[in-house]
Amino acid sequence: MMAPAAGELGVHLRVLAEAPDSSAAQLVVDSPVGAASDETAVRDLVAGADVLTFEHEHVPGALLEALQSEGLPVHPGPDALLHAQDKIAMRTRLTELGLPCPRWRALPAGREAAAAALEAFLDDVVADDAPAPGARGGRGAVVKTSRGGYDGKGVRVVTSADDVADWLDEAADGGVPLLVEEKVPFIRELSVLVARRPSGEVRTWPVVESIQADGVCSVVVAPAPDLPEETADRARQVAVSVAEGLGVTGVLAVEMFEVAGPGGTTEIAVNELAMRPHNSGHWTIDGAVTSQFEQHLRAVLDLPLGDTSPRAPWTVMANVLGSTLDELTDALPTLLAAFPEARVNLYGKGIRPGRKLGHVNVSGDDLDVVRRRAEAAAALLRGESLVEAVPGTSTTTIAGATA
Amino acid sequence: MMAPAAGELGVHLRVLAEAPDSSAAQLVVDSPVGAASDETAVRDLVAGADVLTFEHEHVPGALLEALQSEGLPVHPGPDALLHAQDKIAMRTRLTELGLPCPRWRALPAGREAAAAALEAFLDDVVADDAPAPGARGGRGAVVKTSRGGYDGKGVRVVTSADDVADWLDEAADGGVPLLVEEKVPFIRELSVLVARRPSGEVRTWPVVESIQADGVCSVVVAPAPDLPEETADRARQVAVSVAEGLGVTGVLAVEMFEVAGPGGTTEIAVNELAMRPHNSGHWTIDGAVTSQFEQHLRAVLDLPLGDTSPRAPWTVMANVLGSTLDELTDALPTLLAAFPEARVNLYGKGIRPGRKLGHVNVSGDDLDVVRRRAEAAAALLRGESLVEAVPGTSTTTIAGATA
Repeated sequence: MMAPAAGELGVHLRVLAEAPDSSAAQLVVDSPVGAASDETAVRDLVAGADVLTFEHEHVPGALLEALQSEGLPVHPGPDALLHAQDKIAMRTRLTELGLPCPRWRALPAGREAAAAALEAFLDDVVADDAPAPGARGGRGAVVKTSRGGYDGKGVRVVTSADDVADWLDEAADGGVPLLVEEKVPFIRELSVLVARRPSGEVRTWPVVESIQADGVCSVVVAPAPDLPEETADRARQVAVSVAEGLGVTGVLAVEMFEVAGPGGTTEIAVNELAMRPHNSGHWTIDGAVTSQFEQHLRAVLDLPLGDTSPRAPWTVMANVLGSTLDELTDALPTLLAAFPEARVNLYGKGIRPGRKLGHVNVSGDDLDVVRRRAEAAAALLRGESLVEAVPGTSTTTIAGATA
Repeated sequence: MMAPAAGELGVHLRVLAEAPDSSAAQLVVDSPVGAASDETAVRDLVAGADVLTFEHEHVPGALLEALQSEGLPVHPGPDALLHAQDKIAMRTRLTELGLPCPRWRALPAGREAAAAALEAFLDDVVADDAPAPGARGGRGAVVKTSRGGYDGKGVRVVTSADDVADWLDEAADGGVPLLVEEKVPFIRELSVLVARRPSGEVRTWPVVESIQADGVCSVVVAPAPDLPEETADRARQVAVSVAEGLGVTGVLAVEMFEVAGPGGTTEIAVNELAMRPHNSGHWTIDGAVTSQFEQHLRAVLDLPLGDTSPRAPWTVMANVLGSTLDELTDALPTLLAAFPEARVNLYGKGIRPGRKLGHVNVSGDDLDVVRRRAEAAAALLRGESLVEAVPGTSTTTIAGATA
């Protein structure tokens, strides 16, 4: 999705494609095939390049350190990227910076010590508990693998050490270290997208609400509805502090919980970081003056950042997670007729259950209408019929509503 | 510029690129090199394709007829495309359809007969003349070559047959036939973009004003300011009549003159047709819900057409016509800092005097501001300094005005 912006700005993009039929290889002319962990492939990739950047975090830090020390600009740099790769490093640094996090602790290496530490943490969290007003998240704790997690993988809700006996065994055998975090009684999940240039300029987009289904982002509402202005300001300020405190260059997504505060106020706690254009920012492709993809290119090239204003009062992005269709394009005749304002973006990936295959953006003045239509359009791409996607309506009435 | 829309809709694009370093070859993975006049190249191109379409009109009609008769959908079809290739065919058909044209006539083949017909036409036009209120175009006549004209080429203003003696000689020797048209005393130039599917659905975008410099479109203002509603309705109705009357499929740009009518009203006359996404529609990339490029793909694939509503009260597109820079990207640090809301689109072409190298779109609520900023941003890409591009201002005040 960076390719159109690169073309418009006259930036030559060379992408390391994971396979010859990958999304990137379908859309980028200069796209050698190779793995991000393959030093030779990465060195061939960067020959003659002005800058190296990423669209995922699974790149070996040592290789990035080496390239950087040889004079290649790497954005985000490996020192910053570490905090998106390793949750213990992230929590440690955010805590040092005084930024709001759920209570957490790294579990020690030994099997018994880890189990004891986890039980002690659970006792502390439960002892403090009182149901928070408006909370949906419940209480308890979440154990996470410090590395390799993605879209709900590497995350497990626990009520005792027995719930992660297998992970504790693996960690004790030299596997990935674990951390435990308070299961925050959140009102909802927010996300702040921020871009930062090496020379220091920073811009944020409006705070959005991210709605999850089965641990995966399903819908993003921009801006987050009914968000107290103080909470929005605080969320953007925290995101900027993360970007500056960690020395992030490029686009950074800071996923946050909104939690109840004193006297009807709300507060935020940082959940996860992504140092790249992120699913919670796909709404910007159609809903903001400058998309996160163009902004990322501008940031890593140390060009001035673009206007992040929204183009419409509301934009809703609905993910297409899996599909029962043979081809997503089979849904287009129905979808485009029923939703002529929908901005459809298909990723050219093979269909697998739950896989992010594309998204739909809809913008407008009425949030209820915008959200209903974005979700219905995405449902059509997942293989639902129009009657399933829009209960109680027919093609005629839907089309008529937008004529 | 069709490539991003193709990617988003899951459409595989195969483009016949005129050279290995052409704009298309830089941005489209599947882009064999060849000439549109080379039958073998075109036949290789369309192997396995669902539809053949164009981004210029210089494609041999006979080859298109052959491909169509062999079962390949060709959109726009050669019968329609003829009217964008041959101005005599266009004027003849529009006149048959009763659509408003300047007075015109085809010049006969013989040298003396042509000169006599031209002088007679000039006498008629001059005899009728009285200066029209608000007119900028003046009176007189324009001789055009029926084929091969582009951006002011193949068009000559005449006051006597002597002014086109060379063309009359060439035409008499079997060259391109000529036609003469009244030089319309127009108030301004308008353009209506319309899209039509094979199954009949038609959508138009708002009527725009097209401002020319040296016969080439320099600036487009969307929508056309202060256009009487009746004139706008009439312009859109004429454009739809052209699309339907000529059986156009895909995007059609109808360039028109706005001329003074009785009692302070204004009327329109059709100037030129382009059967493809057109420079006067580049504003839609950022300024409309559905861009002309996505709409063209939807139309030629007979998919439902998208919403053509504007995204902002005003969008101004300013062309970059030539540049004194070594590379257009040299202007980006200054441009992007001074105009963070500007949408820059560079075409990846080699720099030549007067060549269309890119464009800038700016959207907003205040037309004067929007136009001034779009034109200044384009001036920077042409190589002007910021002080030249924005007289009386400094970087600081420009940046401050948009912070």
